[in-house]
Amino acid sequence: MQKLLVIKIGGNIVDDENKLSQFLKDFAAVEGKKILIHGGGKLATRIAEAMGIQQQMVEGRRITDVETLKIVTMVYAGYINKNIVAQLQAYGCNAIGLSGPDGNIIQAIKRNSDSGVGIKGIDYGFAGDIEFVNTDLLKLLLDNGFSIILSPITHNKKGQLLNTNADTIAGETAKALSVAYDVSLVYSFDKSGVLLDADDDTTVIPIIRSGEYEQLKAEHKIFAGMIPKLDNAFSALNSGVSKVIIGNAEQLQNLISGTSGTILTHE
Amino acid sequence: MQKLLVIKIGGNIVDDENKLSQFLKDFAAVEGKKILIHGGGKLATRIAEAMGIQQQMVEGRRITDVETLKIVTMVYAGYINKNIVAQLQAYGCNAIGLSGPDGNIIQAIKRNSDSGVGIKGIDYGFAGDIEFVNTDLLKLLLDNGFSIILSPITHNKKGQLLNTNADTIAGETAKALSVAYDVSLVYSFDKSGVLLDADDDTTVIPIIRSGEYEQLKAEHKIFAGMIPKLDNAFSALNSGVSKVIIGNAEQLQNLISGTSGTILTHE
Repeated sequence: MQKLLVIKIGGNIVDDENKLSQFLKDFAAVEGKKILIHGGGKLATRIAEAMGIQQQMVEGRRITDVETLKIVTMVYAGYINKNIVAQLQAYGCNAIGLSGPDGNIIQAIKRNSDSGVGIKGIDYGFAGDIEFVNTDLLKLLLDNGFSIILSPITHNKKGQLLNTNADTIAGETAKALSVAYDVSLVYSFDKSGVLLDADDDTTVIPIIRSGEYEQLKAEHKIFAGMIPKLDNAFSALNSGVSKVIIGNAEQLQNLISGTSGTILTHE
Repeated sequence: MQKLLVIKIGGNIVDDENKLSQFLKDFAAVEGKKILIHGGGKLATRIAEAMGIQQQMVEGRRITDVETLKIVTMVYAGYINKNIVAQLQAYGCNAIGLSGPDGNIIQAIKRNSDSGVGIKGIDYGFAGDIEFVNTDLLKLLLDNGFSIILSPITHNKKGQLLNTNADTIAGETAKALSVAYDVSLVYSFDKSGVLLDADDDTTVIPIIRSGEYEQLKAEHKIFAGMIPKLDNAFSALNSGVSKVIIGNAEQLQNLISGTSGTILTHE
């Protein structure tokens, strides 16, 4: 099978013009088939503030009310997605920017307050939980030499846009494409990897085997904020993805070559 | 050659939720290969106002300063484009929404104040004049059953997004694709066609031959606001497009069948 890289970049990189630009230069230089999934960053919050719209957060999760959905659609699917694509085109990478409704790539369902995702009884508004990833369009574009830039805006196939967690999109996209490609999934953010001490970047765990993960969790050795990312990562590994790498977006080449970050594996 | 419809919808339809929804239902029902180009409408102006950003207009043309570029990118390439795609997906049309930087479909150049477009000496800011339309990605998608929804956001291949006139995008896209398809170009808006009296919708000119156009212009029989659209239209006709139709977006099926609107032809 041909290799495919699925790379997620965190909001902190998206927020920093210089870091984003360097990351995109590095991404453009990576050879072979590749997909980039970007989150939102603080721009959506800044725009909402400028428009006088209050952002509701419950335990770190944004509540996507109707006005917030409008803003994240504008910022994620519009401003951030097209700026990333334009920069990659300048760096010689033939990128194409897409969101969930395009070619029905990602069909989602509006989160039910009793769905088990998030806190029971909380109405998350227009948050979308993924039903399936449709790989037809993705394969057509990858096999014709395009690199794909995915925003986390999805839809329900009934005309409603939804806001989906970008880590989950990366994991589900990697899983779905592992039927057709040998997929490596990279979660890149502002830390050097999975850390034993969240405040000390030198405490990177170089490798976590799936058997060790539950134990590390049980011993509370893993920072709570990392748990959803790692759950996504191991779920991807258990569904056909070959390798998951977690590490610093400023070290993309080293993450891909395996000389930086945390590698998650089966054995 | 296979037939292809290139349809432009005006801002007034985009602004009206019910009219847009009906238009999209009609568009979804049109058989065969099709591209939809949408303008912006008043939403960009409303968002700019909500954010306290002043919009500069010179003789009906928006000056795209850096903040305005950010807003039109968010609104056109994000909010409007993805809402249209999500609605079309609900109506069973496999749509994919793109902008100029995606696959480098439309490469443009920042308008020079002495370029001859617009008023000499006026700095239009980040207005983009089209250098070329790259048909590779468009053909790949059309030939694989996708309908394409194009926003008027372009780029200069050096990382800079630009704001381009949607009528011009429709004309240039129709021209470029006329090498591969038998193209009909439809400019749909809120009037019934090209009118002898701009205030009287019953004065539609049913057909304008290219020989008559210059005379109608010279006799000032054509409303000044229509001239740029008609110049685009005749330029398209002279460059390989088979037919141009101008008329009311609420009559899409009749425009396509030739029973409504103004038809522009060679003879």
